[in-house]
Amino acid sequence: MGGFAITILIGTLLLKLPLATETEGISWIDAFFMATSATTVTGLVTVDTGTVFTVFGETVIMMLIQIGGLGFMTFAVLAILILGKRISLKERLLLQEALNQTAVGGGIRLTIRLFVFSIMIELFGMILLATVWVPEYGWKFGLYTSLFHSISAFNNAGFSLWSDSLMGYAGDPVVNLVITGMFILGGLGFTVLIDVKSQPIFKKLSLHSKLMIIGTLVVNVMAFLMIFFLEYGNPDTIGSLSFIDKMWTSYFQAVTTRTAGFNTLNIGDMETSSVLLMMVLMFIGAGSGSTGSGIKLTTAIVMVVAVISYLQKRSEVTLMNRTIKRDIVLRSFAIALVGVATVFVTLFLLTVTEPELPFLQLAFETFSAFGTVGLSMGITGELSDPGKVIVMILMFLGRLGPITLAFSLATTKPDKVRYAKEDVYTG
Amino acid sequence: MGGFAITILIGTLLLKLPLATETEGISWIDAFFMATSATTVTGLVTVDTGTVFTVFGETVIMMLIQIGGLGFMTFAVLAILILGKRISLKERLLLQEALNQTAVGGGIRLTIRLFVFSIMIELFGMILLATVWVPEYGWKFGLYTSLFHSISAFNNAGFSLWSDSLMGYAGDPVVNLVITGMFILGGLGFTVLIDVKSQPIFKKLSLHSKLMIIGTLVVNVMAFLMIFFLEYGNPDTIGSLSFIDKMWTSYFQAVTTRTAGFNTLNIGDMETSSVLLMMVLMFIGAGSGSTGSGIKLTTAIVMVVAVISYLQKRSEVTLMNRTIKRDIVLRSFAIALVGVATVFVTLFLLTVTEPELPFLQLAFETFSAFGTVGLSMGITGELSDPGKVIVMILMFLGRLGPITLAFSLATTKPDKVRYAKEDVYTG
Ligand SMILES: [K+]
Ligand SMILES: [K+]
Repeated sequence: MGGFAITILIGTLLLKLPLATETEGISWIDAFFMATSATTVTGLVTVDTGTVFTVFGETVIMMLIQIGGLGFMTFAVLAILILGKRISLKERLLLQEALNQTAVGGGIRLTIRLFVFSIMIELFGMILLATVWVPEYGWKFGLYTSLFHSISAFNNAGFSLWSDSLMGYAGDPVVNLVITGMFILGGLGFTVLIDVKSQPIFKKLSLHSKLMIIGTLVVNVMAFLMIFFLEYGNPDTIGSLSFIDKMWTSYFQAVTTRTAGFNTLNIGDMETSSVLLMMVLMFIGAGSGSTGSGIKLTTAIVMVVAVISYLQKRSEVTLMNRTIKRDIVLRSFAIALVGVATVFVTLFLLTVTEPELPFLQLAFETFSAFGTVGLSMGITGELSDPGKVIVMILMFLGRLGPITLAFSLATTKPDKVRYAKEDVYTG
Repeated sequence: MGGFAITILIGTLLLKLPLATETEGISWIDAFFMATSATTVTGLVTVDTGTVFTVFGETVIMMLIQIGGLGFMTFAVLAILILGKRISLKERLLLQEALNQTAVGGGIRLTIRLFVFSIMIELFGMILLATVWVPEYGWKFGLYTSLFHSISAFNNAGFSLWSDSLMGYAGDPVVNLVITGMFILGGLGFTVLIDVKSQPIFKKLSLHSKLMIIGTLVVNVMAFLMIFFLEYGNPDTIGSLSFIDKMWTSYFQAVTTRTAGFNTLNIGDMETSSVLLMMVLMFIGAGSGSTGSGIKLTTAIVMVVAVISYLQKRSEVTLMNRTIKRDIVLRSFAIALVGVATVFVTLFLLTVTEPELPFLQLAFETFSAFGTVGLSMGITGELSDPGKVIVMILMFLGRLGPITLAFSLATTKPDKVRYAKEDVYTG
């Protein structure tokens, strides 16, 4: 948390340097906003990344994304390895084995391995993207923009050098597949990637990995179908596109929403129904310990399964022949409630500071910042300064996870007395 | 549930009679909508009650409100008395004592007692209201309108004979106090009223009654303060009113929102921030087994307390020196999640059927129907026929409680096998 804040502050200073911007420079608040957005891998922008910043400025943003995304993932894995009480011995051994760790102490070696692993994926992505962008822009800018978008994609940052994000490549199969492939990988979370790498047989994967893989698939396919049908006749989005381009754009918007934040359609032109669906997806988010935020896909799955178990009057919450501990169920609901409260309070404050902006756009922006998604209906730059600060705080909280903050605010009060049970009527 | 549906159908037929309407009659869908709104004690209207219906039609609406409100409360109390597994022996004895019941079997006698109790409160309310409306409108219409609003208030129906609801009496102390007093009483739920009647010492009340009384007080005071400050400078609502009228109208809007549905301000003119706050209040709703709906105040309290306990790493959820069972905690979260899902699906469908209507207005209407509140930003009459049907279904589900439907859809599957526990990372 402290490291995060320091990174953002240094980023702000660097982006404020005359060296960083093409012409007159940007305001402190915009520099602060851009640094926060990059470090929290959100992708909301108050100024246009590609035209406002010099190569130096863009490189600062790239570094912030890398530190924010990878740093956080590394931290998450380290925390699990070293402190982690929430990991089973089997999984810990698996993780150690996969990383060639014989003792828990090898934190630096682990960090280096994760770093190398990420860089390799990012370089691989760059090469694939370069097959499209080098022919179009030449070697220099082609390679540079490929690297930028590759880093931005794997870290789920959603920053683009084009002011219309990837709308210019809405029908390009390579850009669609490489970008989405990278951010979906990044959104699964390192523990899942490591599990799959060392255990390629699906049945033997941990419950967490199985849930993430199946959940990602199911949610993405459902979102794809819904967006496809909802937007099919919308002349402002995919209505006039060819069938295959309708498919590409629906697919891209469906998978980008839970955390990536690139777009190949103008979100502001989409149907209200699609936008509402996207808000839910942004709230759910990606995987635990990944470059994505939100309440996390597994949290949503555990809640749904718990409610079904409750309705079926089962005494245990079971899933894929495994029992989910009551504590994890309670934790999931706690995360969701704290998340809802965070989103509500932020949206409430924004309706006060931005009385001129439409409610739907404000709500969308709020969910986007909470999930560190970065999609916008186009109002980020129009926010007042207090509004920008509110969104910045939300991106920060969203990245930390609201439950982290809630825990740090709560004082531990172990039960001393046991009280008699008494019922309360609910619902 | 069946009784509800039959009441609505008979009400529809009666409201469709030429006898029921002043001039040309109303469409089937509007008759159906009005009957549903009255029976579910919601108060959303697609036609103006006072000008469209004859005294016969208005009497039908009054009867539907009485059957819908009281019938449901009676049913709830009966269910608790006869079947109730969720009530402690102490409370059951208390309830029986209060109602002079010596055996559990005396259902008919109990129903009559509850009915007499309600009618007495309603007549008392009518007399108080008559002190304002008889001088203004003469004996005949004065008494009649007092009876109508008294029944509508105690049953939390929110139907008014004036097309601007109670806006004409925004600063009238008697109307403000009597109407709000009655719907707050009705919203506490019969079990609480009976408990207080037989046990006037606060400390000796059941946990449920204590929570309802303190919760109602705290939420109402907070809502009052927030609306007062948010609307203070709004020239379209209370900005130009005197200080005392600012207080009355803020108070009225604060307490009406959780379920009553009368209004003394034009909701469509309120600040977006107030409207957002009101949506949350409508979702929370009133007391279990009351004339109000929503997820219920105690459900919300249990969730908040459970999350705080979790953050404090307590092993038990405790509250006022009592332990809340894990099952009730899980039930509360289940109700809230099913509630959120119900609201989301409905709002989603409305954005599809009503593309022309603003999102904020649709969201407000959805929360209003879910909580059977009846407040509107003014779009109920503009809904398309499919939109009206969707809102009707939501009012019906809201009144039943979404968890009731969820239970009826779920098949009981008691655990047969015990599975090994495995962790999932969440949040
Ligand atoms: K992002
Ligand atoms: K109502």
